[in-house]
Amino acid sequence: MRNFELYVPTKMIFGEGEIKKLATEAPKDKKILLLYGGGSIKKNGIYDQVIKALKDHTFIEFSGIEANPEYKTLLKALEIIKREDIGYMLAVGGGSVIDGTKFLASAALYNGDNPWDILSKKIRTFKGLPFGAVLTLPATGSEMNSGAVVSRSETNEKLVMGGPGLFAEFSICDPTVVRSIPKRQLANGLADAYTHVLEQYMTYPADGPLQDRFSEGILQTLLEIAPEVIEDPTNYRAASNFMWCCTMALNGYIQKGVPTDWSVHVIAHELTAIYGIDHARTLAVILPKAYEKKFEQKKEKLAQYAERVLNIQEGSLEEKARAAIEGIEKFYKSLGIDTRLRDYTDSYEGFAQHVEKSLLEHGLTALGEHQDITPKVAAEIVEMSY
Amino acid sequence: MRNFELYVPTKMIFGEGEIKKLATEAPKDKKILLLYGGGSIKKNGIYDQVIKALKDHTFIEFSGIEANPEYKTLLKALEIIKREDIGYMLAVGGGSVIDGTKFLASAALYNGDNPWDILSKKIRTFKGLPFGAVLTLPATGSEMNSGAVVSRSETNEKLVMGGPGLFAEFSICDPTVVRSIPKRQLANGLADAYTHVLEQYMTYPADGPLQDRFSEGILQTLLEIAPEVIEDPTNYRAASNFMWCCTMALNGYIQKGVPTDWSVHVIAHELTAIYGIDHARTLAVILPKAYEKKFEQKKEKLAQYAERVLNIQEGSLEEKARAAIEGIEKFYKSLGIDTRLRDYTDSYEGFAQHVEKSLLEHGLTALGEHQDITPKVAAEIVEMSY
Repeated sequence: MRNFELYVPTKMIFGEGEIKKLATEAPKDKKILLLYGGGSIKKNGIYDQVIKALKDHTFIEFSGIEANPEYKTLLKALEIIKREDIGYMLAVGGGSVIDGTKFLASAALYNGDNPWDILSKKIRTFKGLPFGAVLTLPATGSEMNSGAVVSRSETNEKLVMGGPGLFAEFSICDPTVVRSIPKRQLANGLADAYTHVLEQYMTYPADGPLQDRFSEGILQTLLEIAPEVIEDPTNYRAASNFMWCCTMALNGYIQKGVPTDWSVHVIAHELTAIYGIDHARTLAVILPKAYEKKFEQKKEKLAQYAERVLNIQEGSLEEKARAAIEGIEKFYKSLGIDTRLRDYTDSYEGFAQHVEKSLLEHGLTALGEHQDITPKVAAEIVEMSY
Repeated sequence: MRNFELYVPTKMIFGEGEIKKLATEAPKDKKILLLYGGGSIKKNGIYDQVIKALKDHTFIEFSGIEANPEYKTLLKALEIIKREDIGYMLAVGGGSVIDGTKFLASAALYNGDNPWDILSKKIRTFKGLPFGAVLTLPATGSEMNSGAVVSRSETNEKLVMGGPGLFAEFSICDPTVVRSIPKRQLANGLADAYTHVLEQYMTYPADGPLQDRFSEGILQTLLEIAPEVIEDPTNYRAASNFMWCCTMALNGYIQKGVPTDWSVHVIAHELTAIYGIDHARTLAVILPKAYEKKFEQKKEKLAQYAERVLNIQEGSLEEKARAAIEGIEKFYKSLGIDTRLRDYTDSYEGFAQHVEKSLLEHGLTALGEHQDITPKVAAEIVEMSY
């Protein structure tokens, strides 16, 4: 096992009816900026619950954070934070709103001239403006980790940031929010969490048997509850386990001490940046071909996945490994998610070359657990996924 | 899944050679009390590593914390904390030293007249004197949780305490410490961690499939690495996974959202209090008989354990469940741990009645996941374990 540090100080408050705890968790001695997205929380009753819980708090609202949080939008919120002397933030939304809030947490205390540097120059955040979260869409795990992704559409960029100062102080996860999420978003959330686990698991055997089993446990549980969630999002058993799986998929625990990949995410971000394809769907396009490309390096873990998660005991190691890739693609498709770029756009010619150039420009030249996925290799994977 | 709150703010620093990080993790602006046990850290080189890392710190030492930390000993340390204006503590040891330090963290800021009240009156600690830990013996999980057990031999008491103010700020876990641990202690640590998981898992099916799989993952890993650890504690792969399993077995993650039992621990504490039997061994004495006694209530999960952990697919549910109990007892015995009270003492007559009385006196009248293990039922379990 590799050496590691693990620090996850977010207080998780999980369960039906828990949004009311905002009343005691959010500070009363600071002016709060309440951040949310396009207003779906006003239709599903979450907004009302939040406002009721904050009746003794001082807060102002900022809405309109996009599904991929836009730098330009966030700068407007940053202006309010500075002008209004905001001392605390409350993100009410999915990964996008929470990620946007993390950018603001960092930018609010950033001393440089240009907040975009936090992303483009990969500046880690050790202290941020404190914030809490109410999760409305299980998927990204942002509610219990310190990473964020921010988009800048005018330059077709989508970049990551992070640091130990970016954990939510508390996150409230009420699984009944799942009831009002459209099927498409549910499918995205399931695919996103599932892929997060794979990025941390599908590398090579590395003396991390417990991490392997935790990852396999999340994958098995997601495979088990996915059809139930899609079929009936009012099923509390399915919804609560879906929500908890999404958090555990990316709160740091399964990745510590073992190698991770993340190349699929980095490459897939380019699809969102250029075509605006939903994040989860871009993962489903890139991942199967990435695993085909890196078959020799990943076949032991692919076969382990086939044996332990899919219960495939027959066949050679290679046969099991191929069955694993097929199984993964089948899972995406079972969620109604297409796995080829042509399913999403006709104008994919030349996109591989764009990805190669973009990765080069951003210094992302050594991806994957062996750091041997160069921009050229990434372009080959993209071409395979057309 | 049940509603839950999960808050585990300890920074885990894990791996070979990490003790040197004390130099930056421990505060330089506070006077530190360095706490340890009987002095084994002076033989295995850990003391030297700690002292070297603390060369720019101000600290004084307190040694002699017992294998079951004694209230009387801890009161002496408390006096030093107050007299010397100690602002930080550093526990270097196993669960006993860390538990003793937790008691001191609470007692140092306690306003009442009698610190024993923290234990006897079950006073939760929301703010404690801050401390860090260097773990020298994987077993109890105390390095990443907020619970502690303190003994008072003059009254034959062994009581638990806890609260969110009792997490170590950081814990350094260097698996090479396992090399110098005597086989008996290794066996105890393996049995302790394994039993911790069972206390949180072996209840009834409760819509917690992910928690179940995490628990099964720890149990499988412990069963897998136990013979390797005992055979060769210099095996880093085995030692590191042993250490990480012990932490994950009791840092809160596997118990959230699901019912837990803990009756075995409560009953077993009486064996340590009266006979001084090693904690882990008392668990091995009580647990199999507790599961026999509560067979009807636990048989579904027992059968699930047989299927998933022991890979027993044949037989009826009851047969699998019985095979599970046999398998558990076999594991304890494989570690060289005896599972009957008579193996440890000849004077067990009347002990069941003592346990009944003691549980009554301490208000522990409704144990187990169904809260139906009364002192009388507990006494019956103890009699079965003679």
